[in-house]
Amino acid sequence: MNFTLSQVPERSQKPRTKGLTMVMDKGLSVRETEDMLSTASPYIDIVKLGWATSFVSPNLNEKLAVYKNANIPVYFGGTLFEAFVVRNQFDDYRKLLDKYQLSHAEVSDGSIEMPQDVKCEYIHKLSQQVTVLSEVGSKDENKIIPPYKWIQLIKSELQAGAWKVIGEARESGNVGLFRASGEVRQGLVEEILTEIAFEDMIWEAPQKSQQVWFVKLLGANVNLGNIAPSELIPLETIRLGLRGDTFNHFLNTKTKQKWKIDSK
Amino acid sequence: MNFTLSQVPERSQKPRTKGLTMVMDKGLSVRETEDMLSTASPYIDIVKLGWATSFVSPNLNEKLAVYKNANIPVYFGGTLFEAFVVRNQFDDYRKLLDKYQLSHAEVSDGSIEMPQDVKCEYIHKLSQQVTVLSEVGSKDENKIIPPYKWIQLIKSELQAGAWKVIGEARESGNVGLFRASGEVRQGLVEEILTEIAFEDMIWEAPQKSQQVWFVKLLGANVNLGNIAPSELIPLETIRLGLRGDTFNHFLNTKTKQKWKIDSK
Amino acid sequence: MNFTLSQVPERSQKPRTKGLTMVMDKGLSVRETEDMLSTASPYIDIVKLGWATSFVSPNLNEKLAVYKNANIPVYFGGTLFEAFVVRNQFDDYRKLLDKYQLSHAEVSDGSIEMPQDVKCEYIHKLSQQVTVLSEVGSKDENKIIPPYKWIQLIKSELQAGAWKVIGEARESGNVGLFRASGEVRQGLVEEILTEIAFEDMIWEAPQKSQQVWFVKLLGANVNLGNIAPSELIPLETIRLGLRGDTFNHFLNTKTKQKWKIDSK
Repeated sequence: MNFTLSQVPERSQKPRTKGLTMVMDKGLSVRETEDMLSTASPYIDIVKLGWATSFVSPNLNEKLAVYKNANIPVYFGGTLFEAFVVRNQFDDYRKLLDKYQLSHAEVSDGSIEMPQDVKCEYIHKLSQQVTVLSEVGSKDENKIIPPYKWIQLIKSELQAGAWKVIGEARESGNVGLFRASGEVRQGLVEEILTEIAFEDMIWEAPQKSQQVWFVKLLGANVNLGNIAPSELIPLETIRLGLRGDTFNHFLNTKTKQKWKIDSK
Repeated sequence: MNFTLSQVPERSQKPRTKGLTMVMDKGLSVRETEDMLSTASPYIDIVKLGWATSFVSPNLNEKLAVYKNANIPVYFGGTLFEAFVVRNQFDDYRKLLDKYQLSHAEVSDGSIEMPQDVKCEYIHKLSQQVTVLSEVGSKDENKIIPPYKWIQLIKSELQAGAWKVIGEARESGNVGLFRASGEVRQGLVEEILTEIAFEDMIWEAPQKSQQVWFVKLLGANVNLGNIAPSELIPLETIRLGLRGDTFNHFLNTKTKQKWKIDSK
Repeated sequence: MNFTLSQVPERSQKPRTKGLTMVMDKGLSVRETEDMLSTASPYIDIVKLGWATSFVSPNLNEKLAVYKNANIPVYFGGTLFEAFVVRNQFDDYRKLLDKYQLSHAEVSDGSIEMPQDVKCEYIHKLSQQVTVLSEVGSKDENKIIPPYKWIQLIKSELQAGAWKVIGEARESGNVGLFRASGEVRQGLVEEILTEIAFEDMIWEAPQKSQQVWFVKLLGANVNLGNIAPSELIPLETIRLGLRGDTFNHFLNTKTKQKWKIDSK
């Protein structure tokens, strides 16, 4: 931090197990990647190369080298995993992870229907090769999974070997955890949290209002994902109570009383 | 492509006559231009310097050199053409194209009322100097042109010498081909296609849902325009069926049956 | 300007007192800052490091040096001022301005309730150290300040020593001067202008439609703020009547008659 301010919440430090920020890279150039790291490296825990963008990016090798050099793990979006699986090319996918020396991989079923035991089998297999993030929630806005089912899925995937479970939102933040309007499915999140430890989840929250909602509910060190590169610095201020939206959240009672700030 | 996947549609290669991507540069720096090319050069067929942004860009000469060096044609947005014409400075405009050694130019009437024969006369004149793209559709959301009229306009402009006709959408994608909400005027597009070859059109489609709609209707090699630099890689995945939105579109029947994917 | 066009309004030149553009930097890298300056330096009058982003930006010193070198003044967003004040650390804030050799500062009360005489006291104190911009309007969309009250606040802040008064809109443009939909509170702006000189205000107007509205009301040389770096070139075309939205605005009567353009 550049200045000294009281009443700022303590942030976890790298390597973090909570307070993670997962950034979505959907096609940065090498120089843009360097720019992002020069600006926000302390706040980036893991990078997702969104869906199958890695397939068409001419600069893939060079970019992976930049991330490796900065000691930031990278994984391919779950849609790429699904694209291989649906084509009966899972073995090719495993070789790919080796070829690119990736330490992490995502297992998801956002675009295809996959029985849960099959999905868990994939999680189990891949977890012997890399660290696995699994994702729950459909990319189809009409496919609503009820809360008790989310809990079952999350539990079974953690048990199968997932390091973290990601709550789906897409790049736009309008499915899965969210309504088509982008509004949080609050009851869903609260019910999940009755049975799942909050640090076992990474909540995809690309929109500012979604990030604010999670920070208010779970504090500065909530795990958030699908953050756009240009929103890394803004997110960090939201986590610390230094943007209008969370400005009052971390102030102590004395300060709140003095400034007549409603304590709710 | 970095990996080998089955059931991926074949993309046309440069120099393309169909499957074109026209990118909208609304004020990139030289370095940002280089970044875009390093990331997406194989997917950029032509660049539009949006509306009259070329008028106020201090780095114009340098930037044109970068594009020239990458062998990517550039043209000034149609609003600049209209700005010269409305001021009775068409001859100055012709000289400008020579001065900047541009190979392409746009003729449009999005901001002014121009009789169709006058417009075609401009297309004809300019087509003897450069390759002409003409644009149909008003920038005014209240000016709705009926489908039969679109067809007449497109036909007469092709006949007058236009290489391609662009369907207007603006940077935001909410006029011309689209309703104010961004929704495609589907009936309009389908009626146009009854009489116009799909490769004679470039459809401006800045929003993801619009790109998806056109790829589903016309395939991987539809001509799309007004693509933002950061959306070039994402668009390429949409074209190839490697993003959630078009994931099922190019799978073969056997795969669809195995995964119980609805074939519609 | 790269070309010569008639009927283009005259723009004020740097150092401007009217026709100012204030850009919002919410976490640019050093290289992105250089890129912005290489593209739009003539059109940037002052830079705001948005809210408290300066607190968490690892590259703060380097970036300030780039702006200094380009002779462009920079100030910390008002939320940082409020964060220090609410924590009873105003003296630390004054030292900070010295430490970073800032020539400008913002005094605001967008996130806290501050009696107007206290706010004016802060303006007065800081104006003896730096050039002060003060801001009127809450970041809370439910807190509607009536027009006569805006006028009182603006007058008292100018009198207390503010160089310019900023009309609040946030990064998103949906509070203060604007409704939640982003629509301008037209009656508010018009009533303010009955008593306040237009060049004493900087209107935050991040959305295109808002910029267009102000240019149409107040001309090419209205002071506009919270402009995103990528919108600097587009804004300049709006100011000059060279984008569809303001295309007709600066044309002379003869041209309008010839092209049958409605003069309203």
